[in-house]
Amino acid sequence: MTFAALDSALLGPLSATEEMRAVFADEARLRAMLTVEAALARAQAGLGLVPATLPAAIAATAPLDAAAIGRRTALSAVPTIPFVKDVQEQLPAELERAFHKGATTQDIMDTALVLQLRPALDLVAAELDAILAGLSRLAAAHRATPCVGRTYAQHAAPLTFGYKVAVWLAGVSEVAERLPEIRRRVLVASLAGPVGTLAALGKDGPAVLEAFAAELGLGSTSIAWHTRRARMAETGAWLATVLGAVAKMATDIAHLCSTEVGEVAEPYIPGRGGSSAMPHKRNPVSCTVILAAQAASRGYAGILADSMVALHERPAGAWHAEWHALPPLFGLVSGALREARGLAEGLTVDAERMRANIDLTQGLLFADAAASRLGGTMGREAAHALVEHAAGEVRRSGRPLRAVLEAMPEAQGVALDPAFDLTPSIAAAGPWVDRAIQEADAVRALLATPAG
Amino acid sequence: MTFAALDSALLGPLSATEEMRAVFADEARLRAMLTVEAALARAQAGLGLVPATLPAAIAATAPLDAAAIGRRTALSAVPTIPFVKDVQEQLPAELERAFHKGATTQDIMDTALVLQLRPALDLVAAELDAILAGLSRLAAAHRATPCVGRTYAQHAAPLTFGYKVAVWLAGVSEVAERLPEIRRRVLVASLAGPVGTLAALGKDGPAVLEAFAAELGLGSTSIAWHTRRARMAETGAWLATVLGAVAKMATDIAHLCSTEVGEVAEPYIPGRGGSSAMPHKRNPVSCTVILAAQAASRGYAGILADSMVALHERPAGAWHAEWHALPPLFGLVSGALREARGLAEGLTVDAERMRANIDLTQGLLFADAAASRLGGTMGREAAHALVEHAAGEVRRSGRPLRAVLEAMPEAQGVALDPAFDLTPSIAAAGPWVDRAIQEADAVRALLATPAG
Amino acid sequence: MTFAALDSALLGPLSATEEMRAVFADEARLRAMLTVEAALARAQAGLGLVPATLPAAIAATAPLDAAAIGRRTALSAVPTIPFVKDVQEQLPAELERAFHKGATTQDIMDTALVLQLRPALDLVAAELDAILAGLSRLAAAHRATPCVGRTYAQHAAPLTFGYKVAVWLAGVSEVAERLPEIRRRVLVASLAGPVGTLAALGKDGPAVLEAFAAELGLGSTSIAWHTRRARMAETGAWLATVLGAVAKMATDIAHLCSTEVGEVAEPYIPGRGGSSAMPHKRNPVSCTVILAAQAASRGYAGILADSMVALHERPAGAWHAEWHALPPLFGLVSGALREARGLAEGLTVDAERMRANIDLTQGLLFADAAASRLGGTMGREAAHALVEHAAGEVRRSGRPLRAVLEAMPEAQGVALDPAFDLTPSIAAAGPWVDRAIQEADAVRALLATPAG
Amino acid sequence: MTFAALDSALLGPLSATEEMRAVFADEARLRAMLTVEAALARAQAGLGLVPATLPAAIAATAPLDAAAIGRRTALSAVPTIPFVKDVQEQLPAELERAFHKGATTQDIMDTALVLQLRPALDLVAAELDAILAGLSRLAAAHRATPCVGRTYAQHAAPLTFGYKVAVWLAGVSEVAERLPEIRRRVLVASLAGPVGTLAALGKDGPAVLEAFAAELGLGSTSIAWHTRRARMAETGAWLATVLGAVAKMATDIAHLCSTEVGEVAEPYIPGRGGSSAMPHKRNPVSCTVILAAQAASRGYAGILADSMVALHERPAGAWHAEWHALPPLFGLVSGALREARGLAEGLTVDAERMRANIDLTQGLLFADAAASRLGGTMGREAAHALVEHAAGEVRRSGRPLRAVLEAMPEAQGVALDPAFDLTPSIAAAGPWVDRAIQEADAVRALLATPAG
Repeated sequence: MTFAALDSALLGPLSATEEMRAVFADEARLRAMLTVEAALARAQAGLGLVPATLPAAIAATAPLDAAAIGRRTALSAVPTIPFVKDVQEQLPAELERAFHKGATTQDIMDTALVLQLRPALDLVAAELDAILAGLSRLAAAHRATPCVGRTYAQHAAPLTFGYKVAVWLAGVSEVAERLPEIRRRVLVASLAGPVGTLAALGKDGPAVLEAFAAELGLGSTSIAWHTRRARMAETGAWLATVLGAVAKMATDIAHLCSTEVGEVAEPYIPGRGGSSAMPHKRNPVSCTVILAAQAASRGYAGILADSMVALHERPAGAWHAEWHALPPLFGLVSGALREARGLAEGLTVDAERMRANIDLTQGLLFADAAASRLGGTMGREAAHALVEHAAGEVRRSGRPLRAVLEAMPEAQGVALDPAFDLTPSIAAAGPWVDRAIQEADAVRALLATPAG
Repeated sequence: MTFAALDSALLGPLSATEEMRAVFADEARLRAMLTVEAALARAQAGLGLVPATLPAAIAATAPLDAAAIGRRTALSAVPTIPFVKDVQEQLPAELERAFHKGATTQDIMDTALVLQLRPALDLVAAELDAILAGLSRLAAAHRATPCVGRTYAQHAAPLTFGYKVAVWLAGVSEVAERLPEIRRRVLVASLAGPVGTLAALGKDGPAVLEAFAAELGLGSTSIAWHTRRARMAETGAWLATVLGAVAKMATDIAHLCSTEVGEVAEPYIPGRGGSSAMPHKRNPVSCTVILAAQAASRGYAGILADSMVALHERPAGAWHAEWHALPPLFGLVSGALREARGLAEGLTVDAERMRANIDLTQGLLFADAAASRLGGTMGREAAHALVEHAAGEVRRSGRPLRAVLEAMPEAQGVALDPAFDLTPSIAAAGPWVDRAIQEADAVRALLATPAG
Repeated sequence: MTFAALDSALLGPLSATEEMRAVFADEARLRAMLTVEAALARAQAGLGLVPATLPAAIAATAPLDAAAIGRRTALSAVPTIPFVKDVQEQLPAELERAFHKGATTQDIMDTALVLQLRPALDLVAAELDAILAGLSRLAAAHRATPCVGRTYAQHAAPLTFGYKVAVWLAGVSEVAERLPEIRRRVLVASLAGPVGTLAALGKDGPAVLEAFAAELGLGSTSIAWHTRRARMAETGAWLATVLGAVAKMATDIAHLCSTEVGEVAEPYIPGRGGSSAMPHKRNPVSCTVILAAQAASRGYAGILADSMVALHERPAGAWHAEWHALPPLFGLVSGALREARGLAEGLTVDAERMRANIDLTQGLLFADAAASRLGGTMGREAAHALVEHAAGEVRRSGRPLRAVLEAMPEAQGVALDPAFDLTPSIAAAGPWVDRAIQEADAVRALLATPAG
Repeated sequence: MTFAALDSALLGPLSATEEMRAVFADEARLRAMLTVEAALARAQAGLGLVPATLPAAIAATAPLDAAAIGRRTALSAVPTIPFVKDVQEQLPAELERAFHKGATTQDIMDTALVLQLRPALDLVAAELDAILAGLSRLAAAHRATPCVGRTYAQHAAPLTFGYKVAVWLAGVSEVAERLPEIRRRVLVASLAGPVGTLAALGKDGPAVLEAFAAELGLGSTSIAWHTRRARMAETGAWLATVLGAVAKMATDIAHLCSTEVGEVAEPYIPGRGGSSAMPHKRNPVSCTVILAAQAASRGYAGILADSMVALHERPAGAWHAEWHALPPLFGLVSGALREARGLAEGLTVDAERMRANIDLTQGLLFADAAASRLGGTMGREAAHALVEHAAGEVRRSGRPLRAVLEAMPEAQGVALDPAFDLTPSIAAAGPWVDRAIQEADAVRALLATPAG
């Protein structure tokens, strides 16, 4: 019963994990809202502003009816209003007026959302860590496995498969490295009251905010963030880069496992990647999920950035639009990271096929190296032109580049052997792989540090 | 249990209608997929390609288990594969091999989606018609109600409230007018087989396609649209303009019902637009829903346009991304149109306050008209400069523009009376209102024409 | 001296055509603005509202200084204001007050933009026509050239190269077909005065608008479109689909000309697609330009859709944002279509390599056909499972699918020969190619029809 | 001669600053490319890999012809290729082969871009600092100026104008605070050679990279970032939040200076904000520029995020698309910050009008406070309902809320005086203002710290 594929019983399991789904379930939202109210009560009770019995009374609230609240949200535009009413009805009469004291609807919604973001970010962190670990192992294992380097989808020059993996690894590292900053900035409490000044609490405002934030284990901000949404926008933009980092990997793998290239395969799972019509198909399902997630995420980060343009103390629409953007981003990220982890931990690598593809073009892959050696005697530009000419001959005749060059008078006396040797390419790739693995280790240590 | 606010029990009722929700429910998707298979069977039975008993057998399929199919979709990346299996299990053994004959997974998914788009577009058409009717009445009723015209949020010159409404009306007309084109292009069947050639049907391919499309009351295309997605992209972009048209109206209304302006109010519904903290609030809920829908829709049309870049006969990701974009757009549109209809049919207009606001600036609203009259004798640029100078004096002193001008030697002998008369502004606005209403009538006739 | 790559002396020639550049040059904008003022004067002179000498006087205006106007635009936010001043200074004193009569800044800007859109759309139409012609020839020439069909970047089943081209062709046809609608809706004059009612012209408003539009060969609208921007949004979204259609083609070609596939090559141009380091490279420059244009265009259509949310009679920002979005879209389209035309007219096709790639997978490409034949005796699902099993054996052993199947007891007695024959695939593809070419012919006739 | 409004002589001065324009001028790009080559030569000469005379020879290169290079870029798809050729032609023959050693086209382009980003970020930093200073002063000056708080564009409750400004201030602080992180991550050198391994330099690769980066005062990365574009994506997303922060301020100001509200005015500049038709207009030009910049920037950050999905060692299109996105973002930011600084330093504030607007609604602004006091005796929900009822009476009768309440039997005996006192609201706002100013001071200190 869903507009979003993420929420569909049919399509949702493909697109998102159950763990992330649980974080953003309606029941979880209501629980988070109640947690917020209870923390507010504890903070105020601690300062003697509300009865000491209030927190326990809130905690004792029986489960609320999401659908009943939802129907009234269509009147109020914000679920907090029917939510507050329904909780109040369960409270002892003498506590009713102490409940929700000083707060405004947006405080409850925003802080509850932040409480959902915390485990959501933890799930992201755990998957990123596993991906970094998997890719580090894979890069190390193939540190010296020669492989074609490709630019513009054309064979360019040799490198190692470990090097390719190290680039994916560094790509994930550079987004994962930002997680502590994101946590620090977005895991902050909102408590500011109707227009942001917490006026109903008089001079106690700042003290209540700090106690409230402490109760929830969240940070606080200098002043209300009701209409300062840069933190949400940054989080959304960061999630977009998380998707970008794994989609880079997926776009490479989808090509590497294409029929003609065949250098890798997705981890084998019986029944996976089949076709209703074609019995021989093994479609790259993980890459498909990742690339679809990246493509389907476009726009969400932009919506969050636009929501920054929020009129006065609460806007009519810009804030509400946020609700539509941030949870789906986490949903898409959860599915994409799950698949990326599967790839990082279980990719099947065909080193033989990699070697065969290197030989596919009769030595053209070594054209740069050959020109470099020839340039030593005849000048760079002339060597480049000569090899360009020879490459055309290779394409026409199918003869190896080395033979074509050796038959050319201009190339006489130049030792071309080293140019057609894979060893230097492998050697050159190694240190970069090591650097990327070292960096990933540092980032993993960072991820392990407790939030805040 | 949702990532999308649209699907949430808490937030969904605010954002989308139940009618549109039913169109995109998982059960509706499965029913549409079965309808597609049945139509294929009828088309093929009619041409003698499958047993005549197949269609009835398919129609007799017991309801399928969406969740069970969904779990296996995580393996296949497309729900058609488990779906086909589950239906086949219910069919008599002798019919099993005739089922789904020649089709590929994408044919079933795409045609089923199109079958959902048909009632979705009907719902949109009905709301657009009601909005056009409501705005036509409103424009006619206020054809001569004077009102401030505003540019850059500043008072500019007088017009009529009917004129403002007529601009909204024409804005809705110009998007509604495109609906027949959209229907014609997007309501087309997909039947093309694994790589698009319907090869399994041999020379019968085109005939089966045409019969299949006819069975479903859909159009057909010259060649497979598996990887030609302009029609989906156009539909998405059109829905974005539908949201734009009603958001223009909502942005005007939200300002007109702001406290200082107070010229209109959203239709009164008890309990609507309240605040958990502020008992006097009457927040513009309809405008909020509409503006949030427009803001939350950004990105979806772009995702659909990007999905056009689809590799070969079926891409790994681009097609899947579409699933995430089109249904939510219809969800957002449904909620926005429901609210826009409410505004069109029930907006409260305060003509007295409009008149009072005209008088707010001591005649500055007539500055253009005054300059125009003065320009008759002293030249346009000199008159413009003179009135600009006088306007400064009005702001400083609070004296009426007319008095300030009449005291200036340069203005002696110029009859300024007509410049400060509202009658010409009202008279000038009228014919445009009439044109816009006439156009809306023509568009409504177009909407009433049956699809196809 | 540029922020935009399109405008850069270094990067612009790669990204856009000189013809399109000329359409959107500052000088062309100023000329168009003057053309608008002259048409307004002619329309008003025809109705006796301004002196008959005004049009000629405007036409005699000496070229204006764009930079001088631009400096003052920083004060006025709209170039029309300094523009009007500079023209007035050149007019005889007695004509000065008749100039720009009744119009507002936005009328001049918007109508001038429309006058630029007309030749811009003509350039687009001409390229689309050439692409349709080129692709029609290419599809016909390869109507029976067998080729691998690929889904999820995996070999799927055979089709013909002509069929692939016909899909590109139909993709371009379906966007090109919309050009007449776009022209009809977007090539409309704007003349509405400060708040849209043309009040300064009294009862003559509608007549002047119609005469003005006729003078310019443009359509008119029922009521002011100052803040009704659906037509601009539609044009932008349509251009995005034009880019999508050629990017689909480019994404296929970039893959087909990748080293391992090698089935096509971009037209040979000496020196093109080289590398500063690698002398053997022949990078697909046309595909790169097209794919970059599609990628760089994301966002522009969305900006135009968002600009519809325009407050009251003229918004502070939404309209100005349009200026940044529509001309660059035409720039990107011009470069992409130039390259697409080059591909359509000159693609090098290697039919031999296509045949070799069909044989690459030991008959797996015929798995669907084989299962279909086996299904005749053993049932569809069993046959699918059997061939799936055989396919695994082919991958492991390298033996041909046909041999593997023939050795299986379950396959005894089934004539598998026809399943491994390319003829049916070629035959099945043909009629679709013919349909697509026929459709393209009809669309080309439509494009040739004069605008309006 | 431009597609982009930013580059237009007519529109560019409105949209961007001349300082930022100079940073992204073609000449600056070519100079940066030459600087990169010279630094590479120095780094390699230092390690004895190229002749010691090379750096000086490169530095002596006569200015290059951008247009001539641009024409050949249309062949090569990257300007580096003709650029390298043109420089080589100016070098002594014996140095020619040492030039550009080991590098690939993308190294030169990317590092040159980074060299342009450095002064671009400095310009952004300087404007942010000035805005923070201006807003801090403004917030302090109006720390106790009472003002209406507005939610959903409706009067909500009183706060101070200093508080409003402090929210803007904190909004700018939270984006400005990220600048050091951005600088650290994006100001990094690229030197990786054709496929990223710097193979041509053998074991010297890492040492050359570090020396090269040091020569340029840039950081280095663990491994090539040719196809790791998260840093560019982050920079783009950050610039979008910079625009969001100032657009929040502009959207507030545009409303506050609307005719009916009239609480502030943009700094007076003679001739600014006029109209070609309406002599009395004072349009908010600064707000228009800022809001247009924010609206026109939508999409660019998304393009940069999508460019992360880059195939293998260099993609065909994704990288090129970046060129179209990042410089225009800086252009838009430059114009928006210039205007925001003008507002921060020179906004005209009308405290009297603010006071008058507080009184506009007969005390409804104090409804929350009144309900709070009444709740003390009658319970929160009952008090809320009572005041809601009284508010309706105020709207109908025009009588003050206080009088209406005092006439109600339920309110007897409750001291309502304090509820209608502005003092507590002013007092509550103060500490938040102080916190925001203190935070801004800390951020300014951060901005002053030299990059790196």
